[in-house]
Amino acid sequence: MDKRVKNIFNNLEKKPDAILIKNSAEPYIDDNFFYVTGLEKGLFEDSAAVLFPDGNIDLIVSELEAETAKKADVNVKVYKYEEDYENVLKDSVSSFKTIGLNFSGISHREFCKLKDGFPGSEFFDVSKSFVKTRLVKDEFEINLIKKACGIADKVMEKIPQILHEGMCEFELAAEIDYLLQKNGADKPAFDTISSFGKNTSEPHYSHGDTRLNNGDFVLCDFGACFRKYNSDITRTFVFGKAINTKKEMYETVLKAQSIGFDSIKPGLKACEVHDAVNFFIDGTEFKGRFIHSTGHSLGLAVHDGAKISDTSQLMLEENMVFTVEPGIYIPGFGGVRIEDDILIKKDGIEILTKSSRQLIEI
Amino acid sequence: MDKRVKNIFNNLEKKPDAILIKNSAEPYIDDNFFYVTGLEKGLFEDSAAVLFPDGNIDLIVSELEAETAKKADVNVKVYKYEEDYENVLKDSVSSFKTIGLNFSGISHREFCKLKDGFPGSEFFDVSKSFVKTRLVKDEFEINLIKKACGIADKVMEKIPQILHEGMCEFELAAEIDYLLQKNGADKPAFDTISSFGKNTSEPHYSHGDTRLNNGDFVLCDFGACFRKYNSDITRTFVFGKAINTKKEMYETVLKAQSIGFDSIKPGLKACEVHDAVNFFIDGTEFKGRFIHSTGHSLGLAVHDGAKISDTSQLMLEENMVFTVEPGIYIPGFGGVRIEDDILIKKDGIEILTKSSRQLIEI
Repeated sequence: MDKRVKNIFNNLEKKPDAILIKNSAEPYIDDNFFYVTGLEKGLFEDSAAVLFPDGNIDLIVSELEAETAKKADVNVKVYKYEEDYENVLKDSVSSFKTIGLNFSGISHREFCKLKDGFPGSEFFDVSKSFVKTRLVKDEFEINLIKKACGIADKVMEKIPQILHEGMCEFELAAEIDYLLQKNGADKPAFDTISSFGKNTSEPHYSHGDTRLNNGDFVLCDFGACFRKYNSDITRTFVFGKAINTKKEMYETVLKAQSIGFDSIKPGLKACEVHDAVNFFIDGTEFKGRFIHSTGHSLGLAVHDGAKISDTSQLMLEENMVFTVEPGIYIPGFGGVRIEDDILIKKDGIEILTKSSRQLIEI
Repeated sequence: MDKRVKNIFNNLEKKPDAILIKNSAEPYIDDNFFYVTGLEKGLFEDSAAVLFPDGNIDLIVSELEAETAKKADVNVKVYKYEEDYENVLKDSVSSFKTIGLNFSGISHREFCKLKDGFPGSEFFDVSKSFVKTRLVKDEFEINLIKKACGIADKVMEKIPQILHEGMCEFELAAEIDYLLQKNGADKPAFDTISSFGKNTSEPHYSHGDTRLNNGDFVLCDFGACFRKYNSDITRTFVFGKAINTKKEMYETVLKAQSIGFDSIKPGLKACEVHDAVNFFIDGTEFKGRFIHSTGHSLGLAVHDGAKISDTSQLMLEENMVFTVEPGIYIPGFGGVRIEDDILIKKDGIEILTKSSRQLIEI
């Protein structure tokens, strides 16, 4: 993993003597801690990683997680009591004049404690370099994302057989989460969305006790978390025969997604992809019904640092991984979203999720 | 929920004109956002709540979550585009000279943005008041925690029937998570721990592909998240007949837990409870094998702001909810932990988790 650390320093204009990743309690656990160490397990509350320009890492962890930490190929320093944590940290860090921090991944309280504890050091923000470095995936990461996509595909394939009239949204979510874990996921990548009928028109709806009726849209948006890496897939089915409006919505989203796929390549700006997708939908009867971004980068985090949105100036590069997920939402009626994960290659993309994208009427 | 907001102001010595809760992207969502609004669903990335001393709340949310937000009995302000968010926020906040923030629940980056955006305002930390207010649960919260405990009990009861020789730890975790959701949990309260054999000696171990063998300890630590409120329970079973050392470990932990139960009452310091439990274990052959705190407060967060540990000066009060979870861990051999959730009453405690605490040999 020393290459990852070197890249983080290389992507910085102003280089600090060291970079400090300092975890507090959940949710202030910086996932960059896992990025630089390659650790796949453990909670690592009140732990820290000190990164050096030569790629070396000091890991400071409590006795409770010492065994897990030792699985990383780094220098592990163990503390026993909470009050020793700061002392061990001082040993590693206090000689440095400049220390880089991920301002987005550290709580303001933790920052204040560092400022007080290290009055001789200057702290500055290196969050952009973490984001930039992580956007381009290495082979190891791509393999894990592919595995996570494979698990999600296996689960998606089984959903049409699970659906039955009268079942509740939360029951479907339970089945999906169960299948994810039975198929090798460590856990669901995020709170599984399973919505029926008109609930599908709310993009952020999760699930409730609405029951499945004939003719309903069924929208399933979920992913597998496999050794910390994530997939993220959405399919919209019709339970029963689809009426024409539903077919048209579906075909429009499908076409919009393929326009997204076709436009993605290295050297293009992310906003240009979104504009192409949005321009297409706005040229149909569903104008104004696509109300979110076209996609987001995917990796150690489900939302991994960048968006394909109307304002994103990000230049696309080889080995970035994104979701492509246009949708059409008609309040009170229903919504369709089709989402797949793609890897940017030299000349275009590889679609990592393989589930059928054709309309399935169940 | 205006009583909660008033309590937050009442628990402050220095009172600001308003308190601002500002969410960034996952995972940096402040759960106090849900505490003050009572909202049970929704993601609420890039949302904010402005709290006023009279108990009123301005909620600022994106169009995508407007419908969900309106379920709260507060003043909802909706923005459409990301760039409008700051303007809507300015409308609500810029006239205030002093603004309270939860320094533990806001990223340093978000703090810097606020400082730049509101140069005329003074920001100060109100995190302690959030913690203090939330430690004492109201009736609404206690009912939700009781429901979450009931779900966890239903699942724990079924585990002995699920276990079979050769099954993997991750399979058991999948079954537990499935049963949690089938029994009404919105999701598992945290990453379920299911460990077999010597893996039980690592308190933070999660699960892997270790298979179940005759004579093994089986440690299950999980909880239900029900409408944002959590339970947290642990039982240790023996798969097959328990050898004497295992029985002794179990009986010692069980006795330690009952000492914990008996000592908890309003007016006692949390560290006194831990000391009583630890003193007992250190007087047995398992001296030094209890390597974590006796418990933690429980509610909207699984670790809800306070610990029952050797350093905790917290004065226990009626209507606080804690876990009581002593353990004994012998590396290379195995561990036992028994964990229940309790509500502090006027004269003692009510145990909220009802699963049998006797040693079960399967």
